[in-house]
This record gives sequence, structure tokens and C-alpha cells, in this order.
Amino acid sequence: MFDGPPTPEMDPAERRARVRLARSRRIGPVSFLEALQHFGSARRACRELKVVPETEIACEEQALAALGGRFLVLGDVDYPAALAAISDPPPALSAIGTFALLVRPMLAIVGAREASLAGRRFAAELAAALGQAGFVVVSGLARGIDAAAHEAALPTGTVAVLAGGIDQVYPPQHEDVQRAVAERGLLLAETPLGAPPVARSFPRRNRIVSGLSAGVIVIEAAERSGSLITAQRALEQGREVFVVPGSPMDPRYAGSNALIRDGAILVRDANDIISVFGKPQSVCQAAEKPKQIPHDSATEAVLSELGSIPTAVDELVRRCQVSAATVTEVLLALELDGRLERHRGNRVSLI
Amino acid sequence: MFDGPPTPEMDPAERRARVRLARSRRIGPVSFLEALQHFGSARRACRELKVVPETEIACEEQALAALGGRFLVLGDVDYPAALAAISDPPPALSAIGTFALLVRPMLAIVGAREASLAGRRFAAELAAALGQAGFVVVSGLARGIDAAAHEAALPTGTVAVLAGGIDQVYPPQHEDVQRAVAERGLLLAETPLGAPPVARSFPRRNRIVSGLSAGVIVIEAAERSGSLITAQRALEQGREVFVVPGSPMDPRYAGSNALIRDGAILVRDANDIISVFGKPQSVCQAAEKPKQIPHDSATEAVLSELGSIPTAVDELVRRCQVSAATVTEVLLALELDGRLERHRGNRVSLI
Repeated sequence: MFDGPPTPEMDPAERRARVRLARSRRIGPVSFLEALQHFGSARRACRELKVVPETEIACEEQALAALGGRFLVLGDVDYPAALAAISDPPPALSAIGTFALLVRPMLAIVGAREASLAGRRFAAELAAALGQAGFVVVSGLARGIDAAAHEAALPTGTVAVLAGGIDQVYPPQHEDVQRAVAERGLLLAETPLGAPPVARSFPRRNRIVSGLSAGVIVIEAAERSGSLITAQRALEQGREVFVVPGSPMDPRYAGSNALIRDGAILVRDANDIISVFGKPQSVCQAAEKPKQIPHDSATEAVLSELGSIPTAVDELVRRCQVSAATVTEVLLALELDGRLERHRGNRVSLI
Repeated sequence: MFDGPPTPEMDPAERRARVRLARSRRIGPVSFLEALQHFGSARRACRELKVVPETEIACEEQALAALGGRFLVLGDVDYPAALAAISDPPPALSAIGTFALLVRPMLAIVGAREASLAGRRFAAELAAALGQAGFVVVSGLARGIDAAAHEAALPTGTVAVLAGGIDQVYPPQHEDVQRAVAERGLLLAETPLGAPPVARSFPRRNRIVSGLSAGVIVIEAAERSGSLITAQRALEQGREVFVVPGSPMDPRYAGSNALIRDGAILVRDANDIISVFGKPQSVCQAAEKPKQIPHDSATEAVLSELGSIPTAVDELVRRCQVSAATVTEVLLALELDGRLERHRGNRVSLI
């Protein structure tokens, strides 16, 4: 978990150093955090450690800019709080598309590549309904369930996390949907530009899908499927796991039904999910007045727990009994309104 | 709940009086118990209350005998302990078939009349597997799931509880399966001979289906279906509820999925049920040496809790952490072996 304060404008040199550190061999997400803590800054870590040359990062940044994208760096003000809160947040992500989606509450929809028509239709209906309710739909842009969820959520907001570099089209037949997400939603990739997706990239991608999300919805997960890994990571990350049940005679639901037996929440429709989180600010409201503080029960709950003494955001989430994503949203609104101050250790206070 | 001791040979006059009391107007199962407690015996209750004439009972008994059946009366040694333990046990049941099934552990399979082919096939597979594992399969002889379960469990043991009189064939197309259950399994009916099934008979029948059983398995229950009532009664009776999940897009599973959301155990196959109860004595063992005390962990558990001081059977069930049906079976085996003494208040001791 990254507990440094997001700074409205991170020092460009530090920001570049963070990407260098992230792109270096043998620096994984956890060792990145350790280096940052040990050296106090990525700049100092880059001076002390053997990292990739700055020119290489500049080159990748330029290529990314040519695609219309930029880096999203751990510590950036728009780096999602939910993702920063996992034990191994990606230090740097390539991103192309609508960055404003990052501050909204997200839910992941994942499932089988070889999904049934009924499963894909259910994924689409669920994605549309959750989008209407104000949630951004996150998935992995795979065939089957993932693609159905992304396509149905294009009008309301969707984030696709790729396993390969952000310039890699995978699977090849997804060129159109990948372009559509870049244009109307947001593409994210932890792997550097130019790197094809390899086997070990997929579970690493899955941790980002669940890490961005307040909950993960599983549709048609067979035994030993990738969706079960995503569900497992979601549980480790303290996120809700929702599962659509199916017939025990259909092997496409063997993993799904096992998850429900193990305590995951059974889903019949979008209301079974929305009722757990409460309805976030609707998309239209968000689009019309993005910086206005919502006058709702979540804001009131957060304000009642906040004062001039810094309070840990984790503690705030626990006390307010609303989702981490909602608290993040409320805090951002307060911050943009000039009423919130951030402190070290992911603590906040009212000004 | 009936807490009188089952007597190896109930006094025939008392037994007949119990049937008279049970067959009288305005004497329901609960008032039957109250009358028994208040007057000390059914004989005395029959002297004090306005009950049906003895000749009427003799006539019904004769008609029942002509069909090859007899009454099963609360207090009879073969009256199932699980059924006696509910708050409103049927005081008298007409019964035709294999009475030996009554001492074995039972599981109910219930579900939609308008079941899918897949649902009926699943019911049949489950019934066969539970039968192989040593359980008697109980159901209500309705179309769809019920009939599929009964037919598949005929070789290993099945009990059908009718809503109408035991001589009434309902639904008409079930004449063959009803005869097969009478010949190879056991038919039970609380309603007097000659009475057709009426609407209010069905929920009363359902409480017997669940009351006989250690658990109820629900397959394809729509919203507001009779199977949901059976599941509700099972929960009130302290029995396990197992549910086969299905697609939320299939209305035949709307009630099923709601039960799972409310905490019922999701079922993928027979092992999901057997693992909850442990495997009872197999059918073959039971058939070969019916009176031998099984040398298994349940017997050991019961013996370790029993001594010369009378212990309540309820208490025994709690302490041994095995099912009430298994405890009953073990106690019966001990009794037949001359090692168990029964006392008032459903208490037992070792001789």
C-alpha cells in the first residue's frame, strides 16, 4: 500500500524518476515502494540504484504521447485511491483516454473468454445498469465477458486494463473495441510500450482490474479459470466479490458456484450489487457539475468524521461505513473545493 | 414437539384412541398434543372430548388394511424421531409400504412441477446418489422434480407424502409411480382415506416432507412457489436447506437463488450434501444385518455420551454433533440389542 500524499502537482523530476524506477529490471511494485520509503524519493533511488537511463523513459513517453496518452504515476493526484491502497500498486501505468473516469467509483466485470451467448448478454445488461447507476465498469478487454461488459459500458464509462503494452492489440480481433475504449473510455497498461502480453502478465493485470474496483463481478468462471484468480486477488485486497450463479450441470459455472459456496455474494441483477454500495453520484450529475460537492449522506458522513486533526483515510472509510471509492470521491470533491488538506500517511484534515 | 416415550408395544386401546382424537374435527396437530398432555392419555381425552366414533376409525383402519396399509401413530416405536420433534407432528398417518424405511436417515428433494428436463435429470441423479449413500429420499409425489426424485430412489428407498387420502391418486397420471412407491417404498398421508387433496392440504403435507428429513434440497423453485414454503418450514424445524443454483435469467430459479442469497447451502452435486451429514450406514449393510449395532463414529459418539443416568435425546443430538436421524438409528440399534432403556420425556439410558 502506498501511503504517500498525492500532490496536486508532483515535481516533474520526481515523477520522471518514478517511471524510471518502475521500468527498471528487478524493481517490482513492492520493491518500488520499499525503494521509495528507503531513499525518501525516487530521484534519490535513481541516483543510488542501477535504473534504466532517463533517455529510454523520455523515448517511451514520447511514443505514448504520440498515441495521445501519458503516464499515470503512483503519487499523481488522479492515481486512483483504491488502486494505491493495494499491497502492490503499479508504480507507473501507460494511459490513453478519459482520465476523469479515474476519480469515479469502479466495479469490475470479469468472466470466461469462451462465454455463452446468455452470459455475454447478462454481462452487457449488468454493465449498462451499473453504468446508469454511476459506476465505471472495469475489465481486461479479453474475449467473451470482458468485451461484452466494455462495449455495453462505453456510453457511461469503462476502463480496460491490458496485459501487454498499451500499443499492443490483443486479442487481434479486438482492434475496434480497444480503439473505442481509448476514444470514449480509458486504456491502462502496466507493461511498457511495445511489450507483447506474456503468460505472467495476465495475473498481474488481474490484480489491477480488482485493485481499481470496489467490487468484482464474476460471470461464467470455470474451475481453475483466470476469473477465479481475479476474485482471489479481490478478496485479498478487501474488495467485495459478486458472482452470477449457474446450473451445476454447466461446467462454465463450476468456479462461480464454488465462489458462492465459499461466501461470495450471489447476483441476480444490478440491484444486488448497487444495494451493497449505495448508488453513487449519477453520471449526468457528475458531467454537469464535476467539482461540486455532492450533498448526500456519504458527504455528510465523511464531514461528520473530519476535523482539523489529521485522520487516516482508512479509518475514515471504516467509521463512515461507506465504500473506499465513495470516500475517495468525497475527499477529492472537498480538496478541489479547497476545504481539504492532505498529510503524510494517507491522512486528511479539514482546512 | 412430542416428548412422550415411544413404547415398543403401545396399548392397542390407547393407539386406537389416538387415531380417533387425530381424526376429530377441530383437533389439529398442536391441539392433539395439548389434549394428550392435559388428559394424560388419548383414551381419557376421548372420554372427555367430543371425538369421532370408534366405529368410524375401525372402518377406516379396515379399508387401509385392505390396501395393505396401517396407521402410523405418534408414539409408535417406528414413528420417525425427526418428525416427532417438529412443533406440529401429525398425530396419525396412513401408511402403505416398507415401514423399515422410517428408521433410516432421510433427505427431501422438492421443486417445480413445471421443471425443465435438465432439472428433472439433476433431481434423478441427486436422488440416486443420495440413495447410494444410504439416505431415504422423501418428496411429495407431485409432477416434475418430485416424481423424478421418487423414481430414481425406488431401488434404494423413497417415501412419498400425499396431500390427499392415501387411496387418492393425484395427479391422475401418477397412478403408476404411486403404486411403485407403495410396493417398493412407503406412502404416507395425514388426510383420512377418501379425502381428495384440497389447497390447504399442500402446505400441511410440505411440513411432513421437511419434518421427516434432516435436510431439504430445493431444485428449480420459482418466486412464491410451494418449494419455498417447504424450505421455510424446514428452516423453522431446524433442518438444513440445500439449493441447486441456476441462471438469474431463468425464472425457474428466482426462488432458488433468493434462498442461496439468504444463506441456504449451494449444491453442485450429492457430495455437497453428504459432506454436511457424513455418510450414514449404507443400504446394503442395513439390509444384511439390520439389528447389528454399527461400529462407526456416530455409535461411538452416542455411547460415549450415554450412561446409566437418563439423558434427553435432544441433548444427546447436540452433544454428539451428529444428525437427529443418526442418533435415532443408533438408539434403535442399541434398543434392539437390549442395551438401551427409554424413559419419560424422551430420555434414554444404557442398561
